[in-house]
Amino acid sequence: MSERPFTLPFDPTGIVLDRRQGLSRQLYQALRMRVLDGRLSSGTRLPASRDMAAALSLSRNSVVRAYDQLYAEGYIESRVGDGTYVSQLPKLSTKVSTGLSLGFSTGLSTKTANNTVDSSSKLIHNGPCNRLESHHLPPPKSGPPRAFRVGLPAFDLFPFDVWAKLQAGFWRNPDRAALGYGDPAGEPQLRQLIATYLRRSRGLSCTAEQIVITSGAQQAISLCAQLLLEPGEVVAVENPGYRAAGNAFALTGAKVQGVAVDDEGLDCAALNAVEHCRLSYVTPSHQYPTGVTMSLARRLQLLAWAERKDGWIIEDDYDGEYRYSGDPLAPLAALDRSGRVLYVGTFGKIAFPALRLGYLVLPRQLVQVFSRCRALAVRHSEIGTQAVMAQFMAQGHFQRHIRRMRKAALSRRNTLVAGWPQGISGIGPLPHVAAGLHVAVRVDSLARERALIGQAESVGVEINGLSDFWLPGSDTPEDEHAGLVLGFAAVPEAAIEVAVRHLAEVWGHSKS
Amino acid sequence: MSERPFTLPFDPTGIVLDRRQGLSRQLYQALRMRVLDGRLSSGTRLPASRDMAAALSLSRNSVVRAYDQLYAEGYIESRVGDGTYVSQLPKLSTKVSTGLSLGFSTGLSTKTANNTVDSSSKLIHNGPCNRLESHHLPPPKSGPPRAFRVGLPAFDLFPFDVWAKLQAGFWRNPDRAALGYGDPAGEPQLRQLIATYLRRSRGLSCTAEQIVITSGAQQAISLCAQLLLEPGEVVAVENPGYRAAGNAFALTGAKVQGVAVDDEGLDCAALNAVEHCRLSYVTPSHQYPTGVTMSLARRLQLLAWAERKDGWIIEDDYDGEYRYSGDPLAPLAALDRSGRVLYVGTFGKIAFPALRLGYLVLPRQLVQVFSRCRALAVRHSEIGTQAVMAQFMAQGHFQRHIRRMRKAALSRRNTLVAGWPQGISGIGPLPHVAAGLHVAVRVDSLARERALIGQAESVGVEINGLSDFWLPGSDTPEDEHAGLVLGFAAVPEAAIEVAVRHLAEVWGHSKS
Repeated sequence: MSERPFTLPFDPTGIVLDRRQGLSRQLYQALRMRVLDGRLSSGTRLPASRDMAAALSLSRNSVVRAYDQLYAEGYIESRVGDGTYVSQLPKLSTKVSTGLSLGFSTGLSTKTANNTVDSSSKLIHNGPCNRLESHHLPPPKSGPPRAFRVGLPAFDLFPFDVWAKLQAGFWRNPDRAALGYGDPAGEPQLRQLIATYLRRSRGLSCTAEQIVITSGAQQAISLCAQLLLEPGEVVAVENPGYRAAGNAFALTGAKVQGVAVDDEGLDCAALNAVEHCRLSYVTPSHQYPTGVTMSLARRLQLLAWAERKDGWIIEDDYDGEYRYSGDPLAPLAALDRSGRVLYVGTFGKIAFPALRLGYLVLPRQLVQVFSRCRALAVRHSEIGTQAVMAQFMAQGHFQRHIRRMRKAALSRRNTLVAGWPQGISGIGPLPHVAAGLHVAVRVDSLARERALIGQAESVGVEINGLSDFWLPGSDTPEDEHAGLVLGFAAVPEAAIEVAVRHLAEVWGHSKS
Repeated sequence: MSERPFTLPFDPTGIVLDRRQGLSRQLYQALRMRVLDGRLSSGTRLPASRDMAAALSLSRNSVVRAYDQLYAEGYIESRVGDGTYVSQLPKLSTKVSTGLSLGFSTGLSTKTANNTVDSSSKLIHNGPCNRLESHHLPPPKSGPPRAFRVGLPAFDLFPFDVWAKLQAGFWRNPDRAALGYGDPAGEPQLRQLIATYLRRSRGLSCTAEQIVITSGAQQAISLCAQLLLEPGEVVAVENPGYRAAGNAFALTGAKVQGVAVDDEGLDCAALNAVEHCRLSYVTPSHQYPTGVTMSLARRLQLLAWAERKDGWIIEDDYDGEYRYSGDPLAPLAALDRSGRVLYVGTFGKIAFPALRLGYLVLPRQLVQVFSRCRALAVRHSEIGTQAVMAQFMAQGHFQRHIRRMRKAALSRRNTLVAGWPQGISGIGPLPHVAAGLHVAVRVDSLARERALIGQAESVGVEINGLSDFWLPGSDTPEDEHAGLVLGFAAVPEAAIEVAVRHLAEVWGHSKS
């Protein structure tokens, strides 16, 4: 036994307990607080549990539980045949949390917890965080879908009853082997079904081994960014384009170079002029947001660029299923024979975005690194969603639903076109909408764009500005960025009719 | 009209169609292939649809559909009052996919698709991909759980019937507003419930605003890596430790520095000696894999280190709920008053790993950057899993299940301890297991470790080598890395009894 140190007498009567709450937990907190703030200093002897119980009118059991927890966490120690003492601890920083503001039992302190931190003085200043300052997504539009929110399919038509039954069926008796850690590339059956779908319906020849399941298209793009870019390298993106892709690239520290889009799609001559660039991101089926379909000539030029540069093309086919005459167009990846195209597909525009289910179709030589990277990023996707989507596809619901969704989007497009207010000053003609879930209309000037969007908002109609899809610092005149981007699939025809009537009124009124 | 160019006659009779398959699609493929490989050169006039139909004994409708698709994709063009011609296209690369190996209709070609790519000659050589060569996770152990797989809780006891009902209930009539793009930080109700749980049951004072939902602990760690590290910076990790964390850090290009673990946890003196290091990753409740609980003194030293360095601590509390005497220990984050600790929690060890649901509790000043980064990484987690877990918690199932799981793990631990073979040469004593889901036992040498694991495998028992948890290039002698890591919670008691009996036989036999 070491010599017993000089000990301050400890008077527990200062401890006040709330009799309506857990007493053992409160005693633990009170003693822990006193050790951390120094009122109970190292080496102090604590009363024996029976004495403490008597002093505080507690059951001895409550005291023993509190002492046990303090002992387990190292605040106190016991000496055989002697008693219980406060542990020797390093000199405590005054900033250690004493638990004064812990919400235990009382629930009162959540507003003040951590309020000693001045968030403005503690901002982190390294590269990724700085890059997020200027490259983040705006908060998602909240509330139920309304006209003309972009990016939402007609998910009011999704067969939720079928989905609910499949979910219940899966979970009632899941294969136990599937509940641990799964294949980072995704569930084999789902990958097989996607490959079959792409071969049969989309003209894209691929095998299940080339498919990597992702948490929506965004994770597919993010993985590409993490794996194919190094800080300082250049990636070419369409301008205007999908900012969520550009921002994911920028987060890696890469330089995001906008390349113009004309009525044949990405300007490949401009792309050729971009130096130190071996990666490009395109939306060939239905350019986001202009709606242009990339011409065959441009597709071939783009593939030739990738071969020449020993580079890669990310093809985001986010709404390729929506083609209103004939079959969907064959993707760029179907022309790629030298393994240059990384194809991004998503279920978000067929089912609904909150499903967070998408996939990559990869050149064979990239499959392993993407699987490995995904394992480090998230391990894999939640098992139920993958298994239920596989059932949904295997039972034919998916193909039926695509047809249903295409028909619905076409009908909603027609309603928009039929009701679209004509002759509003500053708004260009509504282009023919052959594909996709949205249409972009040019507007004369940025000021006019803002005015039209503000007026629409005043009558409850949501419209995105085309100018928001341009990269900052684009060198075309700002007024040429102006336009309206209208998602026409999110709400039923009746709601579209109401919305266009409101637009005609508020815009027509402003004109006079 | 431009002058009609000289045209080669085109004889369609070389096109052979399989009458059992879609004829229009085959004709499209055949013509597309001929355009791409040059047999049908630019400017060639195609027969009128009725002539083509007659030549191939097809319906005219099939020809029109094929022509329409070729026209939509830009392979052919029509001239008013004249006819249909092959488009002018850029000189084609011989490597463009002609569709010869497309799986359309025939389904025969999937094995040969893309076989022109020699994967060995096309490896990508940039930093992230190179880093994945040496820093990836081994493939997950497949098949149903067996003794003594590490990382699996007793998910045979999960109330799948409850989960199935909650899933069905959610999906039968989901809130439509929740099906678009959600909050990247996660569903508000789930975040609120987690904050309440952590305050009441884990002694961690936090608010819902500090919680960011993740796809399991791995995504939490990966986000930390992406946001808090730049290439070349140093991150300190426990050695031996959780390799999946170290690999996620290494992927960013950071230098991963192992710090020794003794019987009080991370060696803080060694940590202080690591230069240019402002981030450390620890498992204080139950060190992975040694099982050591970090002492209070070390916790305070670690917090002091973070303050002095203006740095961060990632606390991975992967199995903190499993404490076999008294309440779970308060996490390190409960002592942190200066906003230095990023707490990682997971549902994977209470429910099951394939759920991929976890969370971060963040210092307030980090919440926004983490939400933004997560939005770019995956947007957010799948809605159903979040909503159902919120119901599971709100209805009390979660707390009940924790108690059930703790009891089961304790009983399985006891079965392992009772049956563990004694006196096997080279195996150290089985330590007291006060917490967690696994136990680590020292072994004399690396050779002995390999022999014991091989023998275990020969009788169907899965054991991990402790040596696998060390960083490559660690400077302690290799034989000191040797040991056995046994997960004891994955299978019921009866299976554990069988496994330890098999071990006793095969190891005992080998000794004699």
